[in-house]
Amino acid sequence: MTTDRELAIFEAAIKLGALYHQWVGTPVSRASAELLEKAIEKSVILQPYVEEISVRLDRSLMTPNVHGYSEVAGLMFHVEIVTRVGFSYCRARLSPKDDYPYMEIVECD
Amino acid sequence: MTTDRELAIFEAAIKLGALYHQWVGTPVSRASAELLEKAIEKSVILQPYVEEISVRLDRSLMTPNVHGYSEVAGLMFHVEIVTRVGFSYCRARLSPKDDYPYMEIVECD
Amino acid sequence: MTTDRELAIFEAAIKLGALYHQWVGTPVSRASAELLEKAIEKSVILQPYVEEISVRLDRSLMTPNVHGYSEVAGLMFHVEIVTRVGFSYCRARLSPKDDYPYMEIVECD
Amino acid sequence: MTTDRELAIFEAAIKLGALYHQWVGTPVSRASAELLEKAIEKSVILQPYVEEISVRLDRSLMTPNVHGYSEVAGLMFHVEIVTRVGFSYCRARLSPKDDYPYMEIVECD
Repeated sequence: MTTDRELAIFEAAIKLGALYHQWVGTPVSRASAELLEKAIEKSVILQPYVEEISVRLDRSLMTPNVHGYSEVAGLMFHVEIVTRVGFSYCRARLSPKDDYPYMEIVECD
Repeated sequence: MTTDRELAIFEAAIKLGALYHQWVGTPVSRASAELLEKAIEKSVILQPYVEEISVRLDRSLMTPNVHGYSEVAGLMFHVEIVTRVGFSYCRARLSPKDDYPYMEIVECD
Repeated sequence: MTTDRELAIFEAAIKLGALYHQWVGTPVSRASAELLEKAIEKSVILQPYVEEISVRLDRSLMTPNVHGYSEVAGLMFHVEIVTRVGFSYCRARLSPKDDYPYMEIVECD
Repeated sequence: MTTDRELAIFEAAIKLGALYHQWVGTPVSRASAELLEKAIEKSVILQPYVEEISVRLDRSLMTPNVHGYSEVAGLMFHVEIVTRVGFSYCRARLSPKDDYPYMEIVECD
């Protein structure tokens, strides 16, 4: 048996794994980053059990290539998501740690 | 040797193939489709040799799943792109034909 | 505070969400499906906390398009994963339910 | 009007753009790279007009992260593809140039 708290954790992690691999590699620039952040947020919020989602892409890592743009890289993601199942919430995060795009549970109840 | 016209064709096709596989599978709904279209356009226009890009996702195919949303499918794409290399232009298109997401050259000069 | 059991759940779900969005849209046929299954498995097993992974793509859904192949669709996935954190295990699954690619916890300890 | 040579160019470029964005971000290691290369090749060869495809991922760029694996990055790709339309062939390539994953026509006839 699983609890609502565990299901909220499960659902939060699905969304973090999904968005990472859906959007990594997308051409982006500092000028287009904000629109892309909103598009990711609007896409994630459609999915079941998502209460809140914020996506910020680190502009400082958007070093232009020879053609003047970048691609979304794992270390650019600063994402926080809140899922709810029943009366339980889970807040989880994707952000860089030790040069790794680290996903972690922030808090649950 | 290749001509500018051939290079314009080459560059248009790269972008069509790329956007298809970057964005297919993205969660989408009729309400979020317009934002996603704009995000795809802003992403493609960053790439070299792109002069114009228009992306329309077919809402009629966005049949909601049990959780009320859809995912971007190949047959939803109606894309037209114009690339330019030197003084040569290529207009190319991605749209459904025979239930296949068909990419074709519309015209070049 | 989170328990090892909760972390195992979190890690299993990350991998399911990730593999779905990494591989959906890949051109595939009944003849190439087995190689693709193995490639997905070898890719997932590299990731932290994964103990076991099995991927099966439903051949019956691989209806050839006009060019004789298909693309990996969400409903094709039959995936089972086991993650371990400390002494806790989580077995989770991705498979179709109500025409939706459903991810669920099978059992944990 | 377009010639077979131009169509062969168009088709080659579609496949290069497509494979790049389909596979970038995939977890990979030096040990799993060969299987992944084969899976990409088998996937690309399914697509229309493809005569030959070779994919090599640069192991020297597969620096292990803290968990001991890497992800497929654009600069890892060394791809050569041959397409044919009618009696015309196009050989095209994806490989790094100026730190950019560069796609180019090698030769056509």
